[in-house]
Amino acid sequence: MVNDSEKVSNELPQMLGARKSELSEWYHNILLLADIVDIRYNIKGMNVWKAYGYQMMQNLKHFWDDMFKNDGIQELYFPQIIPISYCEQNPEWWAGFKEEGFKVIAGENNEIQGALRPTGEAAIYPMYALWIRTYRDLPFRAYETVSSFRYETAHTRPLIRDREITVWHEIHTVHATKEDSLNEALLHVEFYKKMWNHVALKPLIVEKPEWEVFPGAVGGIEFYYISPDGKAMENGSVNILGQAYAKKFNIKYKDKNGQDETAWQVCTGNGARLLSAVLIQHGDDKGLIVPPNIATYQAVIIPIIFEKEKEKTLESALQLKHELQKAGIRVHLDDRDETPGKKYYEWELKGVPVRIEIGPRDITNHQLVLVQRNVGKKIIVKRENIVGEVNGMLHAVQSELLAKSESDVHKLLEYADTVDEVGRVIDSAKTAKIHWCRNGKCYDTLKKIREGAEIFGSDYYEKKPGKCVVCGKDTENLAYYAKTY
Amino acid sequence: MVNDSEKVSNELPQMLGARKSELSEWYHNILLLADIVDIRYNIKGMNVWKAYGYQMMQNLKHFWDDMFKNDGIQELYFPQIIPISYCEQNPEWWAGFKEEGFKVIAGENNEIQGALRPTGEAAIYPMYALWIRTYRDLPFRAYETVSSFRYETAHTRPLIRDREITVWHEIHTVHATKEDSLNEALLHVEFYKKMWNHVALKPLIVEKPEWEVFPGAVGGIEFYYISPDGKAMENGSVNILGQAYAKKFNIKYKDKNGQDETAWQVCTGNGARLLSAVLIQHGDDKGLIVPPNIATYQAVIIPIIFEKEKEKTLESALQLKHELQKAGIRVHLDDRDETPGKKYYEWELKGVPVRIEIGPRDITNHQLVLVQRNVGKKIIVKRENIVGEVNGMLHAVQSELLAKSESDVHKLLEYADTVDEVGRVIDSAKTAKIHWCRNGKCYDTLKKIREGAEIFGSDYYEKKPGKCVVCGKDTENLAYYAKTY
Repeated sequence: MVNDSEKVSNELPQMLGARKSELSEWYHNILLLADIVDIRYNIKGMNVWKAYGYQMMQNLKHFWDDMFKNDGIQELYFPQIIPISYCEQNPEWWAGFKEEGFKVIAGENNEIQGALRPTGEAAIYPMYALWIRTYRDLPFRAYETVSSFRYETAHTRPLIRDREITVWHEIHTVHATKEDSLNEALLHVEFYKKMWNHVALKPLIVEKPEWEVFPGAVGGIEFYYISPDGKAMENGSVNILGQAYAKKFNIKYKDKNGQDETAWQVCTGNGARLLSAVLIQHGDDKGLIVPPNIATYQAVIIPIIFEKEKEKTLESALQLKHELQKAGIRVHLDDRDETPGKKYYEWELKGVPVRIEIGPRDITNHQLVLVQRNVGKKIIVKRENIVGEVNGMLHAVQSELLAKSESDVHKLLEYADTVDEVGRVIDSAKTAKIHWCRNGKCYDTLKKIREGAEIFGSDYYEKKPGKCVVCGKDTENLAYYAKTY
Repeated sequence: MVNDSEKVSNELPQMLGARKSELSEWYHNILLLADIVDIRYNIKGMNVWKAYGYQMMQNLKHFWDDMFKNDGIQELYFPQIIPISYCEQNPEWWAGFKEEGFKVIAGENNEIQGALRPTGEAAIYPMYALWIRTYRDLPFRAYETVSSFRYETAHTRPLIRDREITVWHEIHTVHATKEDSLNEALLHVEFYKKMWNHVALKPLIVEKPEWEVFPGAVGGIEFYYISPDGKAMENGSVNILGQAYAKKFNIKYKDKNGQDETAWQVCTGNGARLLSAVLIQHGDDKGLIVPPNIATYQAVIIPIIFEKEKEKTLESALQLKHELQKAGIRVHLDDRDETPGKKYYEWELKGVPVRIEIGPRDITNHQLVLVQRNVGKKIIVKRENIVGEVNGMLHAVQSELLAKSESDVHKLLEYADTVDEVGRVIDSAKTAKIHWCRNGKCYDTLKKIREGAEIFGSDYYEKKPGKCVVCGKDTENLAYYAKTY
């Protein structure tokens, strides 16, 4: 995909001008045209959220807020500047982020005040060390939603690879035993499954190769989105920290016998990247298709105006809007002075799941026209049944999008049992599913097969006897190999 | 008040240990003991929000989100780093914030990337200049909620004077005419009146002296809280920007005749400081009293456990919790293994408006005990009426807190008609209300009367014939003079 911040001038595209199959250009144009973000802010990799996109993101955030809090995870907020002294408590973590870190200076001599948070551990764990005293304080489970900052020298891409990673949540939990921490990690996997389901996306869930885990962690489970071009996008990670961080940050507790013990930890995070996968997965040649669960507007009402019946039509449209709002549907009435055709075009581009057309004839016949965005299906329904009909169509969109995502992932995965086959799968814009012995040498061999492609993880659930695609050794481990974002 | 970050050790206070009249120590201790913020984070003026305090703040934020959006103000999000080139477009603004600004460096040579936002104008207006083209784009009305950063060299005080000012909202609107912009400013004043009413606070609403307005603005209306020690705390400002910013940032529009015109602007903002006023105003010697509208928990259930009836009591308490939750009441069941006395003490300290006691005798008698935190009133109510009774008590707390705030402001203001009188009012820990001719010389004279005291504004509504307290000139202008935060 293109590096937007570098290539784009101040001229906005006037039309989508790219088919979905031209994914780079399509994604670039749709972000701007559908009012998701504006990339013309004058720092590479930092974008302005526009209202239509930001509301979707907030709807997604409300979902995770409710899910986490209902499970008893408390919401905290830590300062965005981390003292360097905190960072240096875990040199491995700091080494992993230092180079791509933003530092903050102030004062008469511009002395360094700290690092702008690349992620939260170094801000959070010194406080945990103060708060956690005895086994009674455990488990300690908290999260926050905040920005993360990375000085990306690689190409930036809005919502996918930003320098300010916005609307980022991270959960940090502390446990008395290893077992408790592993159970917590599995729970976080369940959280993410629910979140992906909520946005009608089918993830690949993988275990990271040990040398690829989060700096200082002992293991990790990651969620990946496979995009239509067969590339894999990391999109949420559950990091099993073991006792590594607890030792560095001195997170200890007294057990029932008054003995000091080192705690076990899990940290889990993701942000606006999930929305980028939602937009890429569900969109088509006409623009976005937003899953009803997070849509800014679930339905848009377009009045068909004939001049002499204008007032009556607008009044009926307004009544309709109030009725749908009252039923809890997020609905927008587009009463601008534009042609219906122009409005259809714009709201299709913005991906509103259901369009409702209302004209004089519909009013006379006590009916309405509904159009289902994802399949273009047009039906006439009775006016009196409108709430049920709209809700029915919203449910249909939501479940059809999920089914399509599942079938797309299925199509984009191809099993390969020779190294040549692996190359061929990548060349056909897919992700290769392979047997891999988990050995670093075989990993390195594969990394050379196609530029930018690598094993990004092993299936977390599926095990099956087979032979490593490189060395032929017996293994039950199924891994995924693809170009990655 | 004390400077917390400098004075406090890592030892937490174990008890409130200060009466409300010892306001500094009371405020310092209550923030920590009631789990509002933890000030032990290792950067002066940057604090960690704890869950109990952060939820209150989020409840307040939801109120302004709904209020702004329902009025058609769209929510946006701008990057937190502002390019220096944007800052320099308005030298007056930049001069006002440069010294106390945080700058951000990154890259191989630690080159400056920008300023960490002291406030949003310089991030936002260059984008407005791109978005606003013609009169059809106006009015343009948007807000965001984000942190602001100031390198305060003065004493920091949690939530009142922080280096990271958290949960800060700012509204930025653009208009075709001066009149439209003034009407918008008045609307923002109405927003803030509603917000203060929502948290049971009575503001003083003042016009700033012209030399004290926001850098580059042409006028300002500010909200002030008068604290029990008679000091005035600025708490929200509506800045009438005129065309000053539009000229610097090139925010122009084409009118109906295709003529270029410069736009008119308003910006309005406040943040967690409002919560500090809420905590200070409503608290008493026992701790906080949180207005029901924003309380993390509106009611807490304390089961009175006798060992042999433990199970039955806890079961009834849980049923009660579910019933109240279903009725939309934010309720917490404290089923910890502690004495009721200890729990009463803790939840009084945390300021939960209503306490519900339930023991075996209450269950037998189909009754419950309710205690109203702000007045300590204890009543026995029928179990079957509990939802209505709790809601009734919550309404009582909310309106009694507001009435008390109104009466406190009334008591804390004293009219003075000589300079000597003004000094005496300040010495008696009150705010002086005076006639003032609006002249800078008289302002300066008064500034010397008591150290740290000044005219902070003129009453925005009340006008009355009188004579300037300094020069004796006729004036209808009523001003306020106090020590300020």
